[in-house]
Amino acid sequence: MVRALSKLVVFGVGLIGGSFSLALKRAGGAGDVVGIGRDAANLETARRAGIAQRTYTIADSWQHELRDATLVLVAVPVGQMAAVFAEMAPHLGPATVVSDAGSTKRDVILAARAALARALPRFVPAHPIAGTEHSGAGAAFESLYDGRNVVLTPLPETHDDAAALVEACWKACGARVARLDPARHDALFAAVSHLPHALAFALVGALAARPDRDDYFRYAASGFRDFTRLAASNPEMWRDICLANRDVLRAELASYGKELARIDLLLERADGNALAHYFAAARDARAAWLATHAADGDV
Amino acid sequence: MVRALSKLVVFGVGLIGGSFSLALKRAGGAGDVVGIGRDAANLETARRAGIAQRTYTIADSWQHELRDATLVLVAVPVGQMAAVFAEMAPHLGPATVVSDAGSTKRDVILAARAALARALPRFVPAHPIAGTEHSGAGAAFESLYDGRNVVLTPLPETHDDAAALVEACWKACGARVARLDPARHDALFAAVSHLPHALAFALVGALAARPDRDDYFRYAASGFRDFTRLAASNPEMWRDICLANRDVLRAELASYGKELARIDLLLERADGNALAHYFAAARDARAAWLATHAADGDV
Repeated sequence: MVRALSKLVVFGVGLIGGSFSLALKRAGGAGDVVGIGRDAANLETARRAGIAQRTYTIADSWQHELRDATLVLVAVPVGQMAAVFAEMAPHLGPATVVSDAGSTKRDVILAARAALARALPRFVPAHPIAGTEHSGAGAAFESLYDGRNVVLTPLPETHDDAAALVEACWKACGARVARLDPARHDALFAAVSHLPHALAFALVGALAARPDRDDYFRYAASGFRDFTRLAASNPEMWRDICLANRDVLRAELASYGKELARIDLLLERADGNALAHYFAAARDARAAWLATHAADGDV
Repeated sequence: MVRALSKLVVFGVGLIGGSFSLALKRAGGAGDVVGIGRDAANLETARRAGIAQRTYTIADSWQHELRDATLVLVAVPVGQMAAVFAEMAPHLGPATVVSDAGSTKRDVILAARAALARALPRFVPAHPIAGTEHSGAGAAFESLYDGRNVVLTPLPETHDDAAALVEACWKACGARVARLDPARHDALFAAVSHLPHALAFALVGALAARPDRDDYFRYAASGFRDFTRLAASNPEMWRDICLANRDVLRAELASYGKELARIDLLLERADGNALAHYFAAARDARAAWLATHAADGDV
């Protein structure tokens, strides 16, 4: 990257925040790194993994570390962003850039607007599209973002140099950076991520609630396993995301319900031709998507 | 297995029928194997792969091969079963056992009842729970059924020794064999297989129909890929399955719609506690399922 961050502060030293530090260090782009989090044992892991030189729990006196920070990355669940922004705002230095790693953007921006005051033009909302089924500092690794998409959703007020710094950092981490309007971001991810999570939770939840669930689960096979993999995701994180984006998610649920009604109508009519065409169109669209994006290495 | 089949006839020499022959041969359980199918090039592949010594297209004179067959396995799409049963019925020998490999059972049984006449007690409906995303004789391999479930749904009329022969063959193929009532089979698989396929086709189909679909597909990532893997399945095969089982599938669609309405209500109320509990219950049920069945090697 163009210049190294002289000091990075990571709020929430888990898979996402920890990997950001490791990836920047790999690129020679992070000097002093400070980690702040809730769990002392996790922070100890972060120090041993070389993610951060110094760490603080929320209860410690960490406020003085913000004043000379080049960048503060807030990588906590979206439901905790507002509280973290409010706690750090009074202590930010005049040149410190703030970014986040939340999966939803309108709610994070609302929280930032409410808390950051004069620091708002140096806030750059971001969403790295990466992760694994593991969490915590011990799960972090330096190549997590290689070839992944990171979406920035700058505000009208966002200073160009603040956005440029965050973009340069993510590129140094190996990611590709795109920019979207925040509402557009939330609409797109409601459809391709939040809805599929809800659908997977719903399928498993509905079967698990049946008194004869064991009979069903006994015959579930690899297709069911893949379809429901999203239901292995962290319940609290997905509660936060679904609530944060609930207006668009509810619209997507309604739209998906209409799609199921369309399939139901074809079944009612026993319209085999239309069903086969419908299935073939979906298969072909998915194959085209995979052909394009697998070539990019991002799927 | 207890005794080798002196002669096996496979109708439909694709992944399923071809792998059945290869797996039996591996176990020393198949002597003479005859393949019958629609595509001469595929049959040539089957001969070269050692699946069958002799092959016939439907248009050839294959009828004489049935009279002394120990077992005829019909491994064609369920929509073609009725026609195949009708064509072969007059030529079956007095001791020949017939089985199938269809993913639905009530419709196949209905077709067998209509066509097989005096051979019906020697018909053993079966459903091997196995497959890959590939098809055709060239995709067949001898270990496809290792550790997989095969469900038999015998009729009240089915002779015990016919069912025992088919069970012994599948066990020789490496599979575990269970028995279910045909209606129960169709109900269970509507929920754990047919519904997830329809849901995956619907998600991709709905996105693909949007004018701005490229924006959505651009940000779809690995979770979307896994969730929609079932939408890579063969459209004609799944049209047949969905139509064959449409009464139960429609009931499952309606039930799933109610489950989505429940989630929508939690979102409308912004009931974070209930959402997190719902998601956690689903995650835990899935983890318990995987822990049990991954240990069995069947997921």
